[in-house]
Amino acid sequence: MPSYTPPTRDLQFILHDVLRLSQSGLPGHEDLDRDFTEAVFDAAGKLSSDVLAPLNAVGDRQGCRLENGVVRTPDGFAEAFEAVKEGGWTAMDCDPEYGGQGMPHVLHAATGEMFVAANMAFNMYQGLTHGAYSAIHTHGTDAQKALYLPKMVSCDWTGTMNLTEPHCGTDLGLLRTRAEPQDDGSYLITGTKIFISAGDHDMAENVIHLVLAKAPGGGEGTKGISLFIVPKVLVNDDGSLAAPNGVSVGNLEEKMGIHGNATCVMNFDGARGWLLGELHKGMRAMFTMMNEARLGVGLQGYACAIPAYQAAVEYARERLQGRAVTGAKNPEGPADPLIVHPDIRRSLMDQKSFLEGARMLTLWGAHQIDRSRNGDDDAEGLISLLTPVIKGFLTDKGFETAVLAQQVFGGHGYIEEQGMSQFVRDARITMIYEGANGVQALDLVGRKLAADNGKPLMALFGMVKAFCKEHGENEALATDFIAPLKAASKDLQSAAMYFMERGMKNPDDALAGSYDFMHLFGHAMLGFMWAQQAVAAQSALDEGRGDAAFFRTKLATGRYYMQRQLPMTATHLARITSGADTVMALEAEAF
Amino acid sequence: MPSYTPPTRDLQFILHDVLRLSQSGLPGHEDLDRDFTEAVFDAAGKLSSDVLAPLNAVGDRQGCRLENGVVRTPDGFAEAFEAVKEGGWTAMDCDPEYGGQGMPHVLHAATGEMFVAANMAFNMYQGLTHGAYSAIHTHGTDAQKALYLPKMVSCDWTGTMNLTEPHCGTDLGLLRTRAEPQDDGSYLITGTKIFISAGDHDMAENVIHLVLAKAPGGGEGTKGISLFIVPKVLVNDDGSLAAPNGVSVGNLEEKMGIHGNATCVMNFDGARGWLLGELHKGMRAMFTMMNEARLGVGLQGYACAIPAYQAAVEYARERLQGRAVTGAKNPEGPADPLIVHPDIRRSLMDQKSFLEGARMLTLWGAHQIDRSRNGDDDAEGLISLLTPVIKGFLTDKGFETAVLAQQVFGGHGYIEEQGMSQFVRDARITMIYEGANGVQALDLVGRKLAADNGKPLMALFGMVKAFCKEHGENEALATDFIAPLKAASKDLQSAAMYFMERGMKNPDDALAGSYDFMHLFGHAMLGFMWAQQAVAAQSALDEGRGDAAFFRTKLATGRYYMQRQLPMTATHLARITSGADTVMALEAEAF
Repeated sequence: MPSYTPPTRDLQFILHDVLRLSQSGLPGHEDLDRDFTEAVFDAAGKLSSDVLAPLNAVGDRQGCRLENGVVRTPDGFAEAFEAVKEGGWTAMDCDPEYGGQGMPHVLHAATGEMFVAANMAFNMYQGLTHGAYSAIHTHGTDAQKALYLPKMVSCDWTGTMNLTEPHCGTDLGLLRTRAEPQDDGSYLITGTKIFISAGDHDMAENVIHLVLAKAPGGGEGTKGISLFIVPKVLVNDDGSLAAPNGVSVGNLEEKMGIHGNATCVMNFDGARGWLLGELHKGMRAMFTMMNEARLGVGLQGYACAIPAYQAAVEYARERLQGRAVTGAKNPEGPADPLIVHPDIRRSLMDQKSFLEGARMLTLWGAHQIDRSRNGDDDAEGLISLLTPVIKGFLTDKGFETAVLAQQVFGGHGYIEEQGMSQFVRDARITMIYEGANGVQALDLVGRKLAADNGKPLMALFGMVKAFCKEHGENEALATDFIAPLKAASKDLQSAAMYFMERGMKNPDDALAGSYDFMHLFGHAMLGFMWAQQAVAAQSALDEGRGDAAFFRTKLATGRYYMQRQLPMTATHLARITSGADTVMALEAEAF
Repeated sequence: MPSYTPPTRDLQFILHDVLRLSQSGLPGHEDLDRDFTEAVFDAAGKLSSDVLAPLNAVGDRQGCRLENGVVRTPDGFAEAFEAVKEGGWTAMDCDPEYGGQGMPHVLHAATGEMFVAANMAFNMYQGLTHGAYSAIHTHGTDAQKALYLPKMVSCDWTGTMNLTEPHCGTDLGLLRTRAEPQDDGSYLITGTKIFISAGDHDMAENVIHLVLAKAPGGGEGTKGISLFIVPKVLVNDDGSLAAPNGVSVGNLEEKMGIHGNATCVMNFDGARGWLLGELHKGMRAMFTMMNEARLGVGLQGYACAIPAYQAAVEYARERLQGRAVTGAKNPEGPADPLIVHPDIRRSLMDQKSFLEGARMLTLWGAHQIDRSRNGDDDAEGLISLLTPVIKGFLTDKGFETAVLAQQVFGGHGYIEEQGMSQFVRDARITMIYEGANGVQALDLVGRKLAADNGKPLMALFGMVKAFCKEHGENEALATDFIAPLKAASKDLQSAAMYFMERGMKNPDDALAGSYDFMHLFGHAMLGFMWAQQAVAAQSALDEGRGDAAFFRTKLATGRYYMQRQLPMTATHLARITSGADTVMALEAEAF
């Protein structure tokens, strides 16, 4: 079974050499020095590799079971959940007023990468709780916050998002779940929700469901939707548990992967719920959860491929097969290790250069969230623009990476016992949930691109331009990093320009290229991320700081990405500018 | 559960409008008129959709079971196998001397597409038998042929390929299975083989294993390898069954997919075997099977994605979600069907244009095999060159296609009950077995490119050039088809040139680009195939023959491929010509 090695040094490099967190001037960041974060990563890493990773295959094999209406999690999950709670990991970036540790979001993301990499299905129980926490924290009344948040911060109670119904996923305007107002100000919620991750389980005393439903008088479509807090077990005013609510698990889905997480059909039969946020404005509150969840899924996208990559590297070093074309590298042995072969290298470099670029994008994005929480509107615009890119691109490429890693194993990768299949099956969900990636592309092109009159996009182009200007004279970087970044950025601008010119006249032209645009954007961003890492690594080398071999490896890995991955932007641009004609040419009957 | 609709009209178009089989001048082809092949396709299609397709999910769910040393296939498989045998489908292109029907290979491939699409795991039982049949037919003595082939043609006995061992897959020189010569001319075979597809089952009286093993005196590495016929049950001279041989199933592998096929660990404990072909020249005989198997896997690669695509189309037509950006298309309903959305179209067109191009390449390749069997050495060189492209490219893209189809279903695609997960899990194996796709790329660049002094490659370029010249003046095709084909062909030539110039000096430069070259080659070939289909469709339209809507759909689908897929060749070329430096930059320890 694959193990997991926490990449502490890589995380430290990003936080301290690239983002220079402690010098960022953000409140609370001055304490985030190398020693402090190293201690955090050591603890999170140990928990991940020693406790969570060994349960990953267990969760896949056993799955969850529905017994007499109660969901049973796989062996060992409950004990591991206690360990996560005791370590305070669920509370890390939460509000101290409710028992949180008030740490920056970037640290939550960095440690989250470890937990996800070690056991994605397991980590979803706390991940979804965090999303529900955020929605209540942002939109709840003081009384609601006081009642629910302390228990959710500690994960004594977990949380869920109840959006999807059998006939509607993306198009929430169609939803049928009803909320009947009661005299005491509460509502009775009735309806069926599907695909509810962590919908029920045996690891917490209570599950706080956030449920989208239609209350009377709200009109048609999404305008009539409100968000409700619906606990599995009713809660007394003093926070103690009262009677069970009218909430039950209708079924557990049998899925392709993430078997360790309970994906439930949830039935609400006149369950008592309380309005969260404003009546008929539930979509707004829902998007608080959703945007956080999308960034979380982007993180999952690459993080779940990390142990797959690590296993592929180990296998490529150990498996003896064939001889290097340039002469035996292991002449004493019966054959050379796989890793001598250029095509295996190509695969491993594709994996490594993506994963390290994706990590940088995720943590840079998390840092933008910290900036926005401290009042930086530009950062808020930027992360809003990039949310669909982070979700869509990192999950597509993360899945590809898991497939590449599996492929290194040859036939052995197809055998379940080897563990590589699980990585691929688990990774697949990240492209689908929290808005399938086609919906991300639609959000990007249809909404985010023109948001605030395109200011965030222009700000990003300005940022890249200034960066290229600042480092364009640096001989060590100009050819290998700055020039390809400029070219990719130019392709991105051309595509955006095309959409602006054509999108008004024929919106199909923009939407037919939306998926390619999301990928073009993703490559350009990873190019930007690699260029920033290259500057940091080169500067460390120039100044003779730290481990030179590590920094040289960073530069070599970045060079690979710039040379071998960034050329994709030209193909995406060609596809985009071919417009909608060939895409929409056929009648629906002709397929 | 997904159903399967046989694409008879598309197959007919390729055989008669594009390849013009009955006018090809090949022996036996003059009888292949439209009526004849339509009758064949109707029968094969009915068997596929009515009998085999309904068992696809059954096979996935039940899998095979090992009971007291005997492999039990899923419910219904044995009856279906009888139906396939009774229909004579296993004998179609086999030698009439041994009970075969002596039909052209292209018809075997076209009907094979249907069987694979309907139930890939099931079809492997006969597919592997066909490979073993070919090896015995080509390399066996008259006595061996008379003894084994009639029963294998009818699939009363099935066949296997026993190559892989726990420590060696691609690098067969490492194998440890031993063959001890006996006084009577037979050998005693001892060793363990793994990943033996259809290694044992309950649908045939006997299983004829072809086993690679080392006999004394053959020297080191692959030179010492011989191929042996090792029946599960010994066969008397009169063809009747004698005592069981020393062959047993050690284990059944639990795999990511193709659960309906028994993947066995085979133990040979002094099992009696007979040399097939020359002593110590087993690799040559093995490649007869292997090359056929690789083309068969290429066919599987796209064929197994066909029902996934069909299901995605159906879902996209029926699932109501959101409104078309250009105005409601289903104003009476609560929402428009998915298929109105440009990004869903993009996905469906990606799928459709690949599948129909892949079908054309496969059948065109099968036609080259028929030419080579009739003494056309150029055709033999061509199919030899293209075998790794067909295997590697069609399986990679077929898997991608299955993933795209699954994605159309959103969350529903991730639920096993829906059936889309199985298509993805099944498709995944095609990239791995019969030589993982990296090995195909190595074979292409390291062996096939320079084979016969590059004559086959030059012949192919000449063929494309002549085609472009012939149709370059056709205004209906010049811009949309001929120009992009020329560009793709030019990229292919540039890449080949790069390898020739650099490969001598630094073979790593060639091998680091081998995977991209295989894909560049694949795209260029599909461009060539689409251009040929476009010529046929345009000519039918010009002459007012047949169903105009069908031909216009072909042209529109081809245009999509040329516009949206062929630009990939430029990116592959850029990756290739970046050479091996960034690929090989890191020490093995630095990953």
